[in-house]
Amino acid sequence: MTRDELITTYRRYIDCLNRQDWGELQEFVHDDVRYNDLHVGLAGYRSMLEGDFRAIPDLRFQIELLIADSPHVACRLHFDCTPIGTLFDLPVNGRRVQFEENVFYEFAGERIQKVRSIIDKAAIARQL
Amino acid sequence: MTRDELITTYRRYIDCLNRQDWGELQEFVHDDVRYNDLHVGLAGYRSMLEGDFRAIPDLRFQIELLIADSPHVACRLHFDCTPIGTLFDLPVNGRRVQFEENVFYEFAGERIQKVRSIIDKAAIARQL
Repeated sequence: MTRDELITTYRRYIDCLNRQDWGELQEFVHDDVRYNDLHVGLAGYRSMLEGDFRAIPDLRFQIELLIADSPHVACRLHFDCTPIGTLFDLPVNGRRVQFEENVFYEFAGERIQKVRSIIDKAAIARQL
Repeated sequence: MTRDELITTYRRYIDCLNRQDWGELQEFVHDDVRYNDLHVGLAGYRSMLEGDFRAIPDLRFQIELLIADSPHVACRLHFDCTPIGTLFDLPVNGRRVQFEENVFYEFAGERIQKVRSIIDKAAIARQL
């Protein structure tokens, strides 16, 4: 895909996550997707996201900065949410927290095959 | 700068850091540089880097993935090093640790004006 197609596809992917439309996820995520060097596959990736929404009922992915350089996309995501219990081993317990994720995606054809993410867990710890 | 010029300039910047050539830093970093929304300026940025090399004498910046989309660069950096004391509040004390940083840079002209970085501190904690 070209740079502009990557940008459009990525925005549609984020919209799919925010709608929790798990049936559509396969349009954006490869069957053999790897997350931080772990082979999780599409089913594992979907489980991970479903778990995120159970832990954070008001979870919403907000794009703060998006850049693309085929076949890669890099995004800084912003979160402003209220996790109900423990998040990343931190006792958030319904408090409102704001944090960022810097994440790289590698596309194979039209779908994400590799995700390399770092979430700013220290920022959450500072807010508790 | 074009994509290719950004890539070349960024590689020269990383080489400058690895040589600890602080006199050359001003070629790559803007006087008014911001680091994670804090205005640190060139002098503050240099101090931060000098502090990093004091804490980690064998510090070496290794580019794992580099993408550019003018005026932005995104890089996944890999570190394999032995911090001498406490690092990010973690008692590393001379142990060898490996971790990653996902970082975005915004260029103004030929120099970096904005850095948005997340270091995988949790990965270091898991190795202690």
